[in-house]
This record gives sequence, C-alpha cells and structure tokens, in this order.
Amino acid sequence: MTDFRRIAIVGLGLIGGSIGLAVREHLPGVATRGYDSDPAVRRRAAERGLADEICDTAQAAVADADLVILCVPVGAMGAAARAIAPAIEPGAVVSDVGSSKQAIGSALAEALPGRTVIPAHPVAGTEHSGPDAGFATLFHQRWCIVTPPTGADPAKVAELVRFWEALGATVDTMDAEHHDRVLAVTSHIPHLIAYTIVGTASDLEEVTRGEVIKYSAGGFRDFTRIAASDPTMWRDVFLHNRDAVLEVLDRFLTDFALMREAVRAGDGETLFELFTRTRDIRRSIIELGQDVAQPDFGREDHG
Amino acid sequence: MTDFRRIAIVGLGLIGGSIGLAVREHLPGVATRGYDSDPAVRRRAAERGLADEICDTAQAAVADADLVILCVPVGAMGAAARAIAPAIEPGAVVSDVGSSKQAIGSALAEALPGRTVIPAHPVAGTEHSGPDAGFATLFHQRWCIVTPPTGADPAKVAELVRFWEALGATVDTMDAEHHDRVLAVTSHIPHLIAYTIVGTASDLEEVTRGEVIKYSAGGFRDFTRIAASDPTMWRDVFLHNRDAVLEVLDRFLTDFALMREAVRAGDGETLFELFTRTRDIRRSIIELGQDVAQPDFGREDHG
Repeated sequence: MTDFRRIAIVGLGLIGGSIGLAVREHLPGVATRGYDSDPAVRRRAAERGLADEICDTAQAAVADADLVILCVPVGAMGAAARAIAPAIEPGAVVSDVGSSKQAIGSALAEALPGRTVIPAHPVAGTEHSGPDAGFATLFHQRWCIVTPPTGADPAKVAELVRFWEALGATVDTMDAEHHDRVLAVTSHIPHLIAYTIVGTASDLEEVTRGEVIKYSAGGFRDFTRIAASDPTMWRDVFLHNRDAVLEVLDRFLTDFALMREAVRAGDGETLFELFTRTRDIRRSIIELGQDVAQPDFGREDHG
Repeated sequence: MTDFRRIAIVGLGLIGGSIGLAVREHLPGVATRGYDSDPAVRRRAAERGLADEICDTAQAAVADADLVILCVPVGAMGAAARAIAPAIEPGAVVSDVGSSKQAIGSALAEALPGRTVIPAHPVAGTEHSGPDAGFATLFHQRWCIVTPPTGADPAKVAELVRFWEALGATVDTMDAEHHDRVLAVTSHIPHLIAYTIVGTASDLEEVTRGEVIKYSAGGFRDFTRIAASDPTMWRDVFLHNRDAVLEVLDRFLTDFALMREAVRAGDGETLFELFTRTRDIRRSIIELGQDVAQPDFGREDHG
C-alpha cells in the first residue's frame, strides 16, 4: 500500500491525530512518531495513542522518517519547517495538510531548500479540534488534493498519492493556485459567511441571544456548526489565501446585492429562479457520496 | 390533551403531513381531514394516511372541524382562507404554520372577518418537501411560536397552545412583529445566504461545477442542504417579510464588509476575535437541545 516505513506527524490536532489513527488502522507495520508544541496535547496524544511514539521535540519525531507531515495552522508552517530542517533525512518527503497551498508551498520551499516538498490537502474535517477530535475514518470517501511544485519527482508524488489512498481518500492533483481558488469557494467563503452571520445574530439589540438560540432550528443552527471551527486555523487560512478569498467574496456580494434588490422590489420571479436551480447541486453532492441523503443530515434529534 | 375533536389540515406537504401523522400518534381519538389543491398530492396523502380522510375540496375538509390549520405557502394563505370561509364552523379556530406572521395575520383577518384566527409557526422542518416528507416526530423538542392577534380569546389561545404541546413542541407566544424579526435572523437570512452562495458557486467560470461538488465537504455542502428547500415556500417568505429581512440583511452586510476589510488588510486580530466568540452560541444551542452534539451533525458518511 505504501513504501513509507516511518511517518512523522508534527501537530496532533484533529487532522494530525486522525492521520496517526488512520495509519494504525490501514497501514499496520508503518511506524508513526508524533509531536505537538503543546505539552498538554502531547500527553493526551500519548493517552489516545495518536502515534506509536510521542516525542518531546519535533526534531526527534522527524529524525529518521521517510514521510514528514506538518499538521499545524497555515501561519505556523514556515516556523515548523525551519525547526525540523536540520533533522530531516535527505530522501524524506515533506508534506502538509493545510488549506491554502500557494502560501504553504512558498513557506516550505524557503524553509527547506533542496528537500522534497509536496504539499497536500485532505478536504475533510469536523468542527471539533484538538487531540480528542481525531478518528481513523476521517478521510474515507473524502478527496485529498496534492499540489506538486514544478519539477517535483513524479515517483515521490505517486508515493504520496498512494499514501492518501491507503487512508481511504481519493486523490486529485492540481496546481496550488487553482486549489486555492477552488477551496475559497467550497470552504473558505462558507466559513467566513458562517462566522459573520453568527456574529451578527449575537449582536442584535431587538432580538436577544436567547431567542437566537431557541429558534435556531429554522436554519441558523447549521451555520453555528461551521462557526465553531478552530479560530487559529481559520484566521491563518484567511491571512494566507487573501486574493482568492476576496475574489469569490466579491462575486458573492454582487449576487447577494441582486437578491437584496429582488426582496426589496418584491421580485418573486428572480427569487424563485435562484431557489429552483440550487436544488440540483445538492442532488449531485449526495450522488457523489459527499453528503448523506437523509433529511436534515440524518440528525437524530427528534426523540 | 386537547379539546379539539376534528382537525382540518389544508395543504399536505412536509408540515401539513407531519401534523396529520403527529395527531394520529399523539392524539388518538381526534379525527383529521386533509386537503391539498394538487390531486397527485391528495392521492399520495391517502396512501400514506396523512389524515384519516382526504377530501376532494377544501370546504369538505373544514366542514365540521373545530380546528383548521392552513399549511400552504405564505402567499397562498389569503386565497385558501377565502375558499373555505363559507364552510368553517362558527366556533372553529383557524390557524396556520407560516413563517411570516404579520402578513399572514392580516391576510387571514381580512379573509375571515368575525372568525377566530390565531396564527402559529412551528420552528421545525427539513430540506425535503411534499407529501412524502412528513413524519410524526417533526415537532418533538422544537419550539412553536403562537402570535395571537390583539383581543384574541385567551381560552382559544390556550387551547391551541395545548394542541402544539401535545405534538411534542414547546410553545412561546409573542406579537407577530417580533416573531418576524426573530425569524428573519434565525431562518430567513440564513436561507437567503445559502441560496445565494450556492448560486454563486454554480456560476463561477474559473472553478467548475464538478469541482464545487467534489470538494464540497470543506463546508459548502452544509449550505446546499438549506438551499434545497422548497422554492415556492421560500419565495413567499421573502415577499411577505420584506422589512425585517432587509433590516437583518443590512446588518449582516455591514459586518461582512468589516470581515472583508480584515481579510484585505491582513488584520488577524479582528478575524480571531470573531472566530473565537462564535463558538459559544453553538455550545448553547446544543445545551438547549436544539442541535446534536456529535461532530459534523453526526453524519454517518465515513463508511
């Protein structure tokens, strides 16, 4: 399934922890070492067995690894790479899991000159974070996008692709710029919108916070899930994918202004036309196995 | 549990059908008659047993009912009320389930002079619609908001409250204007945002529809659920709750402009501050039983 024998995971939150658990489940015989800069996270990671060995330094974790995966916030990638640079094996592949690939690609290339850097991004997660959040099946039926830099060794890229496939993911490769634009649409803007509307709802004077919470089943509660995601991770995503985020954000604002005008003018046709065609996308997402078909996400809260 | 003996349900979609099934489950002995303007819906309603008797006219359905519940789109309420006006028993309570209470209150009062009109709104639903979508437990642990008009008979209001409690809901009463403002925040604006961003994502040139669908697990897929809701129902909501929707919409746009500027300026502090405080609302919603605690809504799609 994989030629990698020793995998180092730097950062043991939701994604790093899930990688460790997934390797144990899907790639028995492959050794894992983990490190996190937070001692409390390291202790909890050891208790949960997120890696075979939890090390006290990043250098110790990566020392003889043939695959190093950085699972830290986007803004911490450069520093994490610099810290391990002297300890990495010459032939090792260095990869990551971050959500903005151009910035990470540059940061890793700068911190690790001459090394094999192949960024990647598993499009998977939940709103939970930290060492208790990970689980072995997080990457099942999810896509993982690999963004090989120009001139990357095809054999090493293929090796990284096989690794993610072994964890249950389907892998696509694309250039980092296109990745950043795609993810701005499918992930970054949805998060920024959700965070913002949850903030707006909290701050209204005419409607109390208690009312917002009580009547959230009308639709609002869905947005609060995304808006409960890790703040550091998401701050860094927006700081490091600015151009693509602003581009998609402005398209959304243009469309939203049209809908605002339709509401103001009582233009039912424009509203109806949009509300009708958005149904198809949901259907396609379900057909492609990217969401569950049950109503209301199959939430079982109607006890 | 209730003094109502014969309940007429006009409109047999998600909500009307769920009321019929919930009455059968929670109020055995209470007779239900149902009507829908679409013959195909009436046939399906009869097959599923959404009411004890499915009538071919709305007049027949309401003829000797002591509670009539209109479950049609907001824009169709007035016409539905006018159609049944001559057939309603003098002592009957006429209610509804619509999501914009000021417009409905006026329409029903105008169509049914001298009758007992007590509008209500169960804050419950899924993205599915039609006669196959309803289920008996839809109202369990959900709020139902009753908006009695000035001068409403307190005994009749209490009777309607007990009815909704019997179906598993918790009932609040408030004035229609406040209801419309609360729902603009917790339901209407979230829907308008979701419809719009799904439309924006479909229309991009640089990112294909196929890519949007494939990588939707990054957050976007959540929005597609809400954007799959019934187009007619939602068009009517926006046409009939214009002022409150525009008010909340403009607050959201003001806040979103601040977030846009934070992204543009690389202002991580502003982003981090918002992303941190939005977590609390999610926690409160879960504590109040208005959403499930499991990550990712407990979606079981990690097979």
